[in-house]
Amino acid sequence: MALPRLLRVLPRALPALARALHRAVPGVPDFNSFVTRTNTCGELRSAHVGQEVTLYGWVQYQRQGLFLILRDFQGLTQIVIPQDEAHSHVKKLLSSAPVESVVRVTGIVSPRPPGQENPKMPTGDIEVKAETAEILNSSKKLPFELKDFVKKSEALRMQYRYLDLRSFPLQHNLRLRSQVVMRMREFLCNLHGFVDVETPTLFKRTPGGAKEFLVPSREAGKFYSLPQSPQQFKQLLMVGGLDRYFQVARCYRDEGSRPDRQPEFTQIDIEMSFVDQAGIQRLIEGLLQYSWPEERGSITAPFPSMTYEEALADYGTDKPDTRFGMKRYLKKKDLQSLKESAKSQFNQEIVEIICRPDGSLKSLLTKFLGEKQQSELIQVLNMQVDDVVLLAAGEHKQVCSALGSLRLGSADLLEAAGLVLRDPAAFHFLWVVDFPLFLPKEENSTELESAHHPFTAPHPSDAHLLYSDPTKVRSQHYDLVLNGCEVGGGSIRIHSAELQRFVLEKVLKEDSEVLSHLLQALEFGAPPHGGIALGLDRLISLIVDAPSIRDVIAFPKSFRGRDLMGNAPDYVTPEELEPYHIQVSWPLEEKEAKQN
Amino acid sequence: MALPRLLRVLPRALPALARALHRAVPGVPDFNSFVTRTNTCGELRSAHVGQEVTLYGWVQYQRQGLFLILRDFQGLTQIVIPQDEAHSHVKKLLSSAPVESVVRVTGIVSPRPPGQENPKMPTGDIEVKAETAEILNSSKKLPFELKDFVKKSEALRMQYRYLDLRSFPLQHNLRLRSQVVMRMREFLCNLHGFVDVETPTLFKRTPGGAKEFLVPSREAGKFYSLPQSPQQFKQLLMVGGLDRYFQVARCYRDEGSRPDRQPEFTQIDIEMSFVDQAGIQRLIEGLLQYSWPEERGSITAPFPSMTYEEALADYGTDKPDTRFGMKRYLKKKDLQSLKESAKSQFNQEIVEIICRPDGSLKSLLTKFLGEKQQSELIQVLNMQVDDVVLLAAGEHKQVCSALGSLRLGSADLLEAAGLVLRDPAAFHFLWVVDFPLFLPKEENSTELESAHHPFTAPHPSDAHLLYSDPTKVRSQHYDLVLNGCEVGGGSIRIHSAELQRFVLEKVLKEDSEVLSHLLQALEFGAPPHGGIALGLDRLISLIVDAPSIRDVIAFPKSFRGRDLMGNAPDYVTPEELEPYHIQVSWPLEEKEAKQN
Repeated sequence: MALPRLLRVLPRALPALARALHRAVPGVPDFNSFVTRTNTCGELRSAHVGQEVTLYGWVQYQRQGLFLILRDFQGLTQIVIPQDEAHSHVKKLLSSAPVESVVRVTGIVSPRPPGQENPKMPTGDIEVKAETAEILNSSKKLPFELKDFVKKSEALRMQYRYLDLRSFPLQHNLRLRSQVVMRMREFLCNLHGFVDVETPTLFKRTPGGAKEFLVPSREAGKFYSLPQSPQQFKQLLMVGGLDRYFQVARCYRDEGSRPDRQPEFTQIDIEMSFVDQAGIQRLIEGLLQYSWPEERGSITAPFPSMTYEEALADYGTDKPDTRFGMKRYLKKKDLQSLKESAKSQFNQEIVEIICRPDGSLKSLLTKFLGEKQQSELIQVLNMQVDDVVLLAAGEHKQVCSALGSLRLGSADLLEAAGLVLRDPAAFHFLWVVDFPLFLPKEENSTELESAHHPFTAPHPSDAHLLYSDPTKVRSQHYDLVLNGCEVGGGSIRIHSAELQRFVLEKVLKEDSEVLSHLLQALEFGAPPHGGIALGLDRLISLIVDAPSIRDVIAFPKSFRGRDLMGNAPDYVTPEELEPYHIQVSWPLEEKEAKQN
Repeated sequence: MALPRLLRVLPRALPALARALHRAVPGVPDFNSFVTRTNTCGELRSAHVGQEVTLYGWVQYQRQGLFLILRDFQGLTQIVIPQDEAHSHVKKLLSSAPVESVVRVTGIVSPRPPGQENPKMPTGDIEVKAETAEILNSSKKLPFELKDFVKKSEALRMQYRYLDLRSFPLQHNLRLRSQVVMRMREFLCNLHGFVDVETPTLFKRTPGGAKEFLVPSREAGKFYSLPQSPQQFKQLLMVGGLDRYFQVARCYRDEGSRPDRQPEFTQIDIEMSFVDQAGIQRLIEGLLQYSWPEERGSITAPFPSMTYEEALADYGTDKPDTRFGMKRYLKKKDLQSLKESAKSQFNQEIVEIICRPDGSLKSLLTKFLGEKQQSELIQVLNMQVDDVVLLAAGEHKQVCSALGSLRLGSADLLEAAGLVLRDPAAFHFLWVVDFPLFLPKEENSTELESAHHPFTAPHPSDAHLLYSDPTKVRSQHYDLVLNGCEVGGGSIRIHSAELQRFVLEKVLKEDSEVLSHLLQALEFGAPPHGGIALGLDRLISLIVDAPSIRDVIAFPKSFRGRDLMGNAPDYVTPEELEPYHIQVSWPLEEKEAKQN
């Protein structure tokens, strides 16, 4: 009994000692520095028994005036409410504190009585016998119970986002996001000499920047715009000799109401001088391996690579989900709905071929095929008994797209029937390369537009075709695909002013005046350079297997770009618009409604 | 000679080996990963002699076809242009490359001939004998010589910012900024468990947010606004149980044309739950000590602290420069101009008292003072021979401000005369505390406004005065001052909904409806919390002793908020405004000029 008594004599020195010891543990942050708590609610174990501790947290629930479960971001701790007369004040406080009130408790860590340990709870071996307590903020009755929150409508959850943030999944997602980004920064900044440079978000419209938000300035008629990416700035930083740049960059895109897009989003934005495509790919593989959260296993590099042509031919998409094979063959029924969706979505007829138990083929096609051709077909497709093959004929890209869509549709059907094809804990990264540099414009196929952006360099082997047949030129663009989602994209850029001007003026027929600063910069010793941007919101949502990117953003906007908690955007007065020399053009009906 | 020959046999293996060795050095980034260069232009030393190296850089200058100085972000290396017939192609390339062209050089590191070492150059012991070379991008003649750049007008430098970025000071400032921020992140995230959370920049107007940029949305008449800080969001994160938040946050403020302000700027934004004023102060002291760049010495903590009243009384300002004393006494002439500026700026009469060599006083005042009073004055002010004291009488705050301004004016005069009072390498941090919570409104002194913002908590000792005499209430706001500049400010916040509503509605007479989401959040178990924001641009500019914050920002705006390189803001077409339901209200004269 001597030691515990000694410990009790020095209760004030202990937290500092514990903290000093704690600090010696590398890689474990000290959550109790600068505050008067000694521990978080997830920390206490049998080793702490006998210590006086001070905890701060929220009342998770309270049982019959005997126990109270205190919660913070790290976990739950059982508090024993004292029942003796001397502590009647503490008892009264703690037994009457409403759920979700904020409480300070100071008490002694004690072992739970034998048989009452809770092995499911990390702190389940101990409880804290409260000696003093304070209600720091009493909570009103919540609009719903916190544990029912996930069952509520998303609109309600977004309105009370500050309550939703207390839930385990959101705490976990935001903390994991912070840690992954921190590891990325360590890799880039500390290990590889990248410079974190902030670039402006108040800039000007880029050509064709129809999706850029405008910001009125105090100069009449002049507007800033919020850029979709720091593309121009990062290239100019390379011209400025920064050599290696990165930024966790806020970007803006006004897409009206496209689902699961946010008007503001974040990308890991990277640019390097004197680098080639393989250099950027190795960098990103290293970056992702280094920052990959331990709880999600590990990933192996190099990632496989596939050309755009291969991806389209084999998977019918430029972002193949390579977690499952099924390159256009099926192993079950549900053919009718697949054929109907091909018809309705792609106007594409589909013919199926089924391999019967006896190994023969069943299909509309068999009457056109000789026995030799049939057995060749079985061999080429490696058909097994019960396999189903879907065939389509038509223009290459359209057929591929239709079959690619059927492949995903088939996976949906098979998973609905209980098969796991797309394991959310499996991470299949894939580089897709050799994209075309230009595509025919949708509205006028005799004109060309950039497949990605006009700064992308042509593939060296195709550069000569630029002047004769630009549609045949492949680019040095690369996409990074994870489980069928595009999580990044980049390219080696054009560093020759002459070539850049040719692409803008002769191929794309654009007015290069608006990019004159960039063209000029390329004339004054621009180094060869390239880069990439990773979509952070999407990447993190895949890592934590969240259904939406809204689940990895603290305060996301709704589908329609609204903040449902603070009610943004909102009306402003005409006086507030005056300094910006703008006025609202009310659509007629709204105008009338307002006048009434 | 055996070893060098062996080294030459394995030139391809060496860079990888060197890199592997390099990686073992903790804390030194590998600048040569992912690219084909073996070294930067600042790296080579005598120890590298005999190695084959590949460098990439810019032609700094070239001498008589014999030498070329290659430059990158790390330094300069002398390249020897080969003169023998076998290398005539290399000679031709290198001797004709224009200044600022981008060049790859591969060659052998050699000692400089005895007597030709350059001790001023870190690579001055060696030179690289070029074996192969390539001009990667030839440069046009620059609009000015790079070394003359700092002498040019700032407008020209901003127009060609990508060239200015190649200069040593800007490279240094941006790299130091990146490193300081990285160290801050390590301290907050890795050592103390802060979570880096990104908050929206498209939000809605805050009450009185006249300085907030507007962003028209696609809903007619509705606007987002770009917030001046993440204040509301960080408080809501505390309500959401995040416990410890930080963000390197982009903020926006439309101040028209105030000098040395940027429409977008960056703050280190911090918020903690369960913390008091002292906790935040220790956190910030630890943060600054940890991230302070070695080249600027070290700083000691805790920082001294001073109340707002003391600062005003002793220094005539709430941001005293404590690098020099001179609390209102002077030691030289130039009195006339000081008195004139007090008259013109503050409408304040000044009386001087000069201590003559014989110890007697010379002043208009002496005729009103007896001998005893004069000697008491000498004693109280600790006057020495030749000292000058400036006296002023009037309303306390105005007199203090006038004298505070004269103190700085005197320092200017003394420094112009050769004295160093304000050493830019001395860093005097100071906490200023106990600010008033409310101030009389300038336009109507019977009404009150928040001295900082309406979320600031009252000082516990003054809380009772809130209901009787709010003008007497001190706040829990604190400013961090460095060398006379405010580099940070924060407060403990109000966490009681009732108190917050009282302050908004009863004291400030504001419509609390627009903050209803925050008031509601405080009702559902908001923890006590507080925080701070450091102005990163200003802090870094003081650390590197830059005359303007524009010198620590990659792409700053001009005084008038313009981007002189890309020409932003710019005109947009009426069609581009259509989706946003706005039109320009042209001031009449512009309208007419446009019509002509």
